[in-house]
This record gives sequence, structure tokens and C-alpha cells, in this order.
Amino acid sequence: MEINMQPVAWVHNTRQGLKDDFWGDVVSDITLADYIPDEAFDGIETFSHLEILFYFDKVAPGNIVFSGHPRGNPEWPNTGIFAQRKKDRPNRIGLSTVELLAHDGRTITVRRLDAVDGTPILEIKPVYREFRPQREIRQPEWVAELMKDYWKQTPLD
Amino acid sequence: MEINMQPVAWVHNTRQGLKDDFWGDVVSDITLADYIPDEAFDGIETFSHLEILFYFDKVAPGNIVFSGHPRGNPEWPNTGIFAQRKKDRPNRIGLSTVELLAHDGRTITVRRLDAVDGTPILEIKPVYREFRPQREIRQPEWVAELMKDYWKQTPLD
Repeated sequence: MEINMQPVAWVHNTRQGLKDDFWGDVVSDITLADYIPDEAFDGIETFSHLEILFYFDKVAPGNIVFSGHPRGNPEWPNTGIFAQRKKDRPNRIGLSTVELLAHDGRTITVRRLDAVDGTPILEIKPVYREFRPQREIRQPEWVAELMKDYWKQTPLD
Repeated sequence: MEINMQPVAWVHNTRQGLKDDFWGDVVSDITLADYIPDEAFDGIETFSHLEILFYFDKVAPGNIVFSGHPRGNPEWPNTGIFAQRKKDRPNRIGLSTVELLAHDGRTITVRRLDAVDGTPILEIKPVYREFRPQREIRQPEWVAELMKDYWKQTPLD
């Protein structure tokens, strides 16, 4: 089975390089692709949060490492590709829950989208309270270490 | 730009028809596609929750309603496709946060996956606490009404 998709929108922001960390101050515009009518965003401003699915189009396709140390750090355990969120993965789909800041016609403005300028968007869904986890989230210790600088602001050079 | 994807896994459960509600007691197995090695699930059991992206392959492709009343209910406002989670949508991607119950080789068992038997899976990501919303989730009133029976158990006939 092969599945074909088209971008429904595009990211515009000031983020260029594929760096891992410091996404805290990135604000992004997301503008609908030409074939999608304006009304696809009707009422979107009644939600505070959205789930944004995007396509890692700048990641070279190639041999996927199906299990390895996150960020190559040997102090962290061998971990399967479906037990980590790194970008070199089958189908190259990224997913972030963002804060919706504004809606103006064919464009929405969001915070906490960890995608670079020009990234194609595959899907946008509103966050419903009823879909949140019902129990406490459990995760291994390496995750907090890996995420230490992720949402920090860009350091001054 | 056209994007091609392949299923990375498949859903096995007892759910057949495309009904909207009563997903509360559905438990699903997710088994890796043949071309994905076992180690793609290494360590996945150290996480309590996963994000599952799936493909609505039973939904007929066709003309998308880009704005309309959720579930056709005229008491609910006209709402854009990216401000609701219905299945007839561009790129036909579904997304649910599930509870991981078990991991056995090439199969994981999950709760709260609202996908029918045989559904192709596009992507699996672990839930990191650091990606949760930072502020309170705001949503319009119709969402709670629409979701009233969604996570209830199947009623006896």
C-alpha cells in the first residue's frame, strides 16, 4: 500500500538551520496552500491549542537507524525509533502541540512549533480536552535530560 | 509537492464499522509491518503513552467539506475542517494519544485508539511530558456535547 499526500499549508518563521534546541522564542505563521479555501480555518480561534503534523522535507531520506542511543549519547539506552521523537524516521512526520496566538484569513500564528521556515504542513487538528491522557505520563529519565534546552530561548552569540 | 508514505504497522482489534461513538472499551494490538525490524520498539515499554498517527483508508476520498456543522448538527456553528477532528479530511490522517498496556516483540497493545480493525499506521511517537500544553486548554462548548458518548463503553444491544 502506498499513500500519497499533499501539503495543506506552509510554515513561515525565522528558523533556518536544523538545530536540535532553543525553540522557546520561535513564533510561526502557517498559511494555507493555494488549493485549500479560507473557510478551512473557520472558527479555529475558538481553540487555544492545535496539533500540527508536518513533513521533515529537509531530512535526507535514507537508511533509518531503527534502534540507537538518543542523540548518539552512549549514556542513554538503545532506544527504538518508535520510542523516540528524532527526525530521521520512517515517513518523516513531525508532530507538535502548539499554542494558537492569532487567526487572520488564510494564516494562523502559533508558538511552540519546532519546524523550520518553509516546512510543509500535512494536517492541523484542534486539541480537544477529551483526548488528553487520563493517567499520569511516565517516561524514562533520559527524556528530561535530552529536553533540557529544547524550549529555552536562543542564546545570544 | 507530492509526498509518499508506507504503513509502518497495522491495527488489530474487534472494531469493524465506522461508528462515531463508544470507543471506551476498545483495546488494540499494533503489529509492525514486515519491512520494519523488531528493534524499532526497543524500550517502548518505558513510556506510558504514545501518539499514534493512522490513515483513514476506509474513508472514501472525494470532495472535502471545508467548513460545516460538526456531525451535521445545525445547532453547532459552521466550523472549518482544521477546527474539527472528523475523518473526512485532506490527507486523511487520524491521531490519538493512547495508553500503552503491553509490548511483546513486534506487537504493542494499547487503549484509547479510535481506529478500526485493519487500519494502517503511519507513525508512532512516545509522549514526552515536555511537549504537553503549558496553558489551560480552551475549546468551544460544542466539543463537550459532541464527545459526550465518545469514550463510553459499547452499550448492550
